[in-house]
Amino acid sequence: MAARRFLLLCASLVTGYFIGTCGAAASELTERPVVRLAELEIDPNQLAVYKAALKEEIETSIRAEPGVLTLCAVSVKDHPTQIRIFETYADRAAYEAHLQAPHFKKYKSETQGMVKTLRLVETDLILLGAKTGQR
Amino acid sequence: MAARRFLLLCASLVTGYFIGTCGAAASELTERPVVRLAELEIDPNQLAVYKAALKEEIETSIRAEPGVLTLCAVSVKDHPTQIRIFETYADRAAYEAHLQAPHFKKYKSETQGMVKTLRLVETDLILLGAKTGQR
Repeated sequence: MAARRFLLLCASLVTGYFIGTCGAAASELTERPVVRLAELEIDPNQLAVYKAALKEEIETSIRAEPGVLTLCAVSVKDHPTQIRIFETYADRAAYEAHLQAPHFKKYKSETQGMVKTLRLVETDLILLGAKTGQR
Repeated sequence: MAARRFLLLCASLVTGYFIGTCGAAASELTERPVVRLAELEIDPNQLAVYKAALKEEIETSIRAEPGVLTLCAVSVKDHPTQIRIFETYADRAAYEAHLQAPHFKKYKSETQGMVKTLRLVETDLILLGAKTGQR
């Protein structure tokens, strides 16, 4: 399983960090982390409820889905209704599985009336460097 | 040291993930991860050289700086000169130290003629969930 291999790669590096890149052949596309950025504008009157739903969705996804590597939600400083969610998945299959997960569908239906605009930015990975927590 | 505590927190969770949040008191601001997003437009004629310098900077920062937790560089799909760099630091001190690191200064001076526009998006963390590589 691609997700498993990716995580084992992290754990195997004794120096405590890993570097993921995209220099491999096209046939290995599904083995690569998928990185996506979501840019949202939230109804200010529903911001607290939205953030609670978002936190629940992130916690459940990280705990329950092996292929969801990171979900990081921030707001733009001084613009609390401008939310950015930075997402990394072990591979394309993990990303597709996440879209079908019941907790993700619950989040989407609960928050659809709170989201004024949503832009999904698809990306090509250049380099992902991260501490593994092994130091 | 804040960075050390943050990484130990990751390693101590047997379930293999960690959740960072920003619900603490104002006095703990320096203990929190700092998340920053850089949005760059690169001169297309110098894109390959720029990406090589960026990769070197990321690899060195992750390896040499305990407080640099993640540096993830992507390009917007179908727009290879539009680069986004998602950065997380253990705390404000780690971020300030990174700006003074010799490898970061080298990257900045080497690439200043390649960067057409640069926007730094400062953020407030809502929730950071990530696998630790412990699974």
